[in-house]
Amino acid sequence: MPMNQARVIIENMRPQLQCGTYFIKRVVNESIEVYADVIGDGHDVVQADVAFKHESEKSFTTVRMHHLGNDAHGAVFSVKKQGFYDYKVEAWVDNPLNWQHGIEAKLRDHQIVTSELLDGVQYLEHLLKNVTSKNKAYVEQLISAFQDKESYDLAIKEAISVKLHDLFVNHPLKTFVNSSVVLQVYVDREKARFSTWYEFFPRSTASKEGVHGTFKDAERLLPKIAAMGFDTIYLPPIHPIGEVNRKGKNNATAAQEGDSGVPWGIGSRLGGHKSIHPELGNEADFKRFIKKASEFQLEVAMDLAFQAAPDHPYTITNPEWFRKRPDGTMQYAENPPKKYQDIVNFYFESKAYKELWQELLDVTLHWIGFGVNIFRVDNPHTKPYYFWNWLISEVKKKHPDVLFLAEAFSRPKVMQQLAKQGFTQSYTYFTWRVHKHELMEYVTELTQSEMKEYYRPNFWPNTPDINPYHLQGANESMHLIRYALAATLCGNLGIYGPVFEYMVTDAMPGKEEYLHSEKYEVRFWDWSIENKITYLMTKLNFARRSHPSLQQTNNIRFCPIENDMLMAFYKWNDERTDETLIVVNLDPYYSQQGMVQLPLNELGIEAGRPIQMHDLITDNSYLWYSEWNFVELPASLPFHVFQIKK
Amino acid sequence: MPMNQARVIIENMRPQLQCGTYFIKRVVNESIEVYADVIGDGHDVVQADVAFKHESEKSFTTVRMHHLGNDAHGAVFSVKKQGFYDYKVEAWVDNPLNWQHGIEAKLRDHQIVTSELLDGVQYLEHLLKNVTSKNKAYVEQLISAFQDKESYDLAIKEAISVKLHDLFVNHPLKTFVNSSVVLQVYVDREKARFSTWYEFFPRSTASKEGVHGTFKDAERLLPKIAAMGFDTIYLPPIHPIGEVNRKGKNNATAAQEGDSGVPWGIGSRLGGHKSIHPELGNEADFKRFIKKASEFQLEVAMDLAFQAAPDHPYTITNPEWFRKRPDGTMQYAENPPKKYQDIVNFYFESKAYKELWQELLDVTLHWIGFGVNIFRVDNPHTKPYYFWNWLISEVKKKHPDVLFLAEAFSRPKVMQQLAKQGFTQSYTYFTWRVHKHELMEYVTELTQSEMKEYYRPNFWPNTPDINPYHLQGANESMHLIRYALAATLCGNLGIYGPVFEYMVTDAMPGKEEYLHSEKYEVRFWDWSIENKITYLMTKLNFARRSHPSLQQTNNIRFCPIENDMLMAFYKWNDERTDETLIVVNLDPYYSQQGMVQLPLNELGIEAGRPIQMHDLITDNSYLWYSEWNFVELPASLPFHVFQIKK
Repeated sequence: MPMNQARVIIENMRPQLQCGTYFIKRVVNESIEVYADVIGDGHDVVQADVAFKHESEKSFTTVRMHHLGNDAHGAVFSVKKQGFYDYKVEAWVDNPLNWQHGIEAKLRDHQIVTSELLDGVQYLEHLLKNVTSKNKAYVEQLISAFQDKESYDLAIKEAISVKLHDLFVNHPLKTFVNSSVVLQVYVDREKARFSTWYEFFPRSTASKEGVHGTFKDAERLLPKIAAMGFDTIYLPPIHPIGEVNRKGKNNATAAQEGDSGVPWGIGSRLGGHKSIHPELGNEADFKRFIKKASEFQLEVAMDLAFQAAPDHPYTITNPEWFRKRPDGTMQYAENPPKKYQDIVNFYFESKAYKELWQELLDVTLHWIGFGVNIFRVDNPHTKPYYFWNWLISEVKKKHPDVLFLAEAFSRPKVMQQLAKQGFTQSYTYFTWRVHKHELMEYVTELTQSEMKEYYRPNFWPNTPDINPYHLQGANESMHLIRYALAATLCGNLGIYGPVFEYMVTDAMPGKEEYLHSEKYEVRFWDWSIENKITYLMTKLNFARRSHPSLQQTNNIRFCPIENDMLMAFYKWNDERTDETLIVVNLDPYYSQQGMVQLPLNELGIEAGRPIQMHDLITDNSYLWYSEWNFVELPASLPFHVFQIKK
Repeated sequence: MPMNQARVIIENMRPQLQCGTYFIKRVVNESIEVYADVIGDGHDVVQADVAFKHESEKSFTTVRMHHLGNDAHGAVFSVKKQGFYDYKVEAWVDNPLNWQHGIEAKLRDHQIVTSELLDGVQYLEHLLKNVTSKNKAYVEQLISAFQDKESYDLAIKEAISVKLHDLFVNHPLKTFVNSSVVLQVYVDREKARFSTWYEFFPRSTASKEGVHGTFKDAERLLPKIAAMGFDTIYLPPIHPIGEVNRKGKNNATAAQEGDSGVPWGIGSRLGGHKSIHPELGNEADFKRFIKKASEFQLEVAMDLAFQAAPDHPYTITNPEWFRKRPDGTMQYAENPPKKYQDIVNFYFESKAYKELWQELLDVTLHWIGFGVNIFRVDNPHTKPYYFWNWLISEVKKKHPDVLFLAEAFSRPKVMQQLAKQGFTQSYTYFTWRVHKHELMEYVTELTQSEMKEYYRPNFWPNTPDINPYHLQGANESMHLIRYALAATLCGNLGIYGPVFEYMVTDAMPGKEEYLHSEKYEVRFWDWSIENKITYLMTKLNFARRSHPSLQQTNNIRFCPIENDMLMAFYKWNDERTDETLIVVNLDPYYSQQGMVQLPLNELGIEAGRPIQMHDLITDNSYLWYSEWNFVELPASLPFHVFQIKK
């Protein structure tokens, strides 16, 4: 190695993902706790800063790190603007502080420090060049005193003063400073962390049975969805549906006359990814729908499903984007021995990949032009990771408000990888986590492992693709439990309605698929129905809206509770101005009782002092006096969402 | 990011130290297990290689990795030569294997694969360009068969054949291959892992009391030390000792007339770091000593103590290498409020640091010129880490056989850092680990954590600086226990003799310092004494010599044993051609009995089959039939070193 006089080594800096290959994620006003091992040689005083800057800024801001023992140092900074921040650690042997530390030890040992005072003048001279004018006179006075034997008493008093210490800390002399690598954090708008999604098929919104719904029909639902406390409407693809090899009802291989097809089988003679399915309306209708939604503070999320029906216009205009079979025909999708003849995949190994990537970016930008700022991306794990990295970063350069939700239900490392490459939010295994131990284990992994830095979960009790076994034929309590868990465990959640709140749980036999799934046919719903589920969903959604501790995912601590059917957890916002305790009865049939332990240490209170537990659902309040407290939850109202009032 | 068609991501590659900042370490013929997460998009077959090459080689050798589940892959390679090796992981979607995988699934599903066979021709053509001549005809035959409907049966038989599979594996088509970063391993000679050190003061080797010993006197000890099974002689500094502010006996601040001073207080009017203390002999004597030692297969390790007495010649020739006090005098060493007026430290913050570094390298090379290939480095943690990195790498470029032992007894991360920067071996906390739980915890940390990749421990029961409390006034058994632990737990060990084997344990009251320490005065010993300790040390040393499982540190598994005073562990060499079980009685006063559990799974044997346990110390053999076996160890012979014969 080259000769380098730096004396302090910086190691094990975190948060750090794969040596800085990936950025970590935050939303505006969140903070980042930076840690590093800072290892000096010998016994001299070592200091370290965290330095950070927004991409729009020229120079770094620094925060002094604190020694936490065992050579670990830490500091916190917060991010105020959207976009990228750089952050790094700088460390150095602090000669002025070391000098002060030495003189203190010698004075305690009753040594004469005349020579040390003279030695200190160089550090005062460094200060003189850096302190504000109001401290200049003080430093000048010390420079004289340090060199004047007559002023020895004053000199030693000031040499070890807090005032001088603080000046040295605030105007550090960074001799042979060493720097870590520069890492990055990407800052999103707050919705990346807190969002409440409602998915429905606009084609199922007609007010008359047997009629294809339109955007105009769907407009009718906006006040209702807003009133339930949702903030995001997610629509399955709205593009023309392929007619060649179209699938029939209940996933029949061949469609019957009049079958409306699968919205994810995109593209026909009527257009492709930039077109609108004519039966839903036209571009003006869609724009109007988006505008109407925004009047109810609802954002419209679109589906990005990058695949084509065999009759997609691209197959004619750009056959080079598809793989050919040896006979020259288009290779349909397959996962041998299964064949999906209604779909042709883009061929990302194509020589024309750059044009393909660009076109898919154009599709995305096209809809951003309509006012769409959220995309739910279909099956991202079947396209290259680097493609997503490129597409998302290209979009975000100009449209930092745009959010991407990765719909990958795949292996853990695949789902993690998509989040690392830039997806804002990700679907999760919550859909299949039912029992207390598996819920606790999964949420602990999401919130306590490295995943907390880049994987923003979005909890969905159901989706059009997943009618989970535990919801098939499930009662009202089970639906309430699943919604309450999603709403309180995770900052982001979504349901696919109205089948969820109307408990339409009929399944294809033996499969986690809906019977008469809206994926394959238009359904008719009486959207005016209100029931206990809609009532309590609304209560939960508004509790989330008014309680910051429920608008995030990572600040969670499970509380011991002596019953395997009861789960309890404490949540808080970063400032601890809002604290909640959630207790859920996981048993959809019976009342359950247990003793829950309050995290008194974290709450900063002693046992014996009363705490008011205010249930945000029932508006009841309880006074708790002990560390362990009795709770009883009936299956008919299987959760408490307590605001903790100290 | 730029557009990149690679489809496979490589992550979490290990062993890896701080993102490749530091190399890992091995000795010749050791192996490296490389792991990485290899994450492809979609469902295609992914393959990965470990690629490695010695610094003298131009091209990489590859080993195919195996999928271990959860997207982790692993492979092993071994290193045959000293010096640096590069290693990296390459991964790709393997289109030929994916094609074969698809055709297999379709044939099992009774599909016709005519089109797939045609598709496969491209992969056969890739093979044709790469296979050896003996396989060319086979591939040509398949190319015809795949395109000829008449040969369909042959074609499908061969398409899914193991032969074709193996050809695809051995001649991979690495489409859009992705590569990890390139990491490094440094390979030392075997002695880096297995060495047995004997430290003594040559000035204490005179055959007459009151006389200063010489190299010639020390030659007398060589046959005895060799016969005890040591392979390395380590001498404290042999340079002229400072006369200014020289310390007296028992660390008295002022030396009396005739006091011989501290060998680590280097430099006087008689010379500095490149000179020899005249009372020990001259350069020719030292060369002769090294040569004589080598005749007994003993290497001589020298002390590198980079500090100066106030009268070191450097203080006159190169005052710029030392820090000045404001009055112009040399700054002596201090750790306030303590002062060390007999020592001046080199000032590594000096502007003239390059010349200083170069001179210290020259000192090292000077003694290498005498035939010294091992250095024990005194207090390396009080000099900059980057200095050591530079010095060691400069030395190793031309002298790869040279080994450096870091004498830092400091904080964990400081000691680890020195090892990361290049030290071959390191002293450890073994000196203070006495009880079963703390020995097990410490050895587990050394051998199971990341430390196993770079930190080569050297276990010393005592040193001239450390007369540990548990050895002060300790009996013979305690000495035997400490030596047996060092000899069996660690590939490298050392003692400071003859005070260890002669049980000279008098201490400075309340301190872990020897009374009448040889650091401050010449001692007289009757070197001819042999005792039970020398006898059993010799036994242990020769057991180590003939048993590869004892010549390394990392292959160790502690065995449950139902007695807190008994510790048992199983050791093996990489090839498992040598397996040992060591049981130590940690109680120096009483016999202890317990049941030890054999690791039958690791041994690859079923309970009930007899195993011969051959004690390498007593030559007794026992037949064990069970998983749990009775052992009893008296304090008078407190260890078994069993060779396991299956």
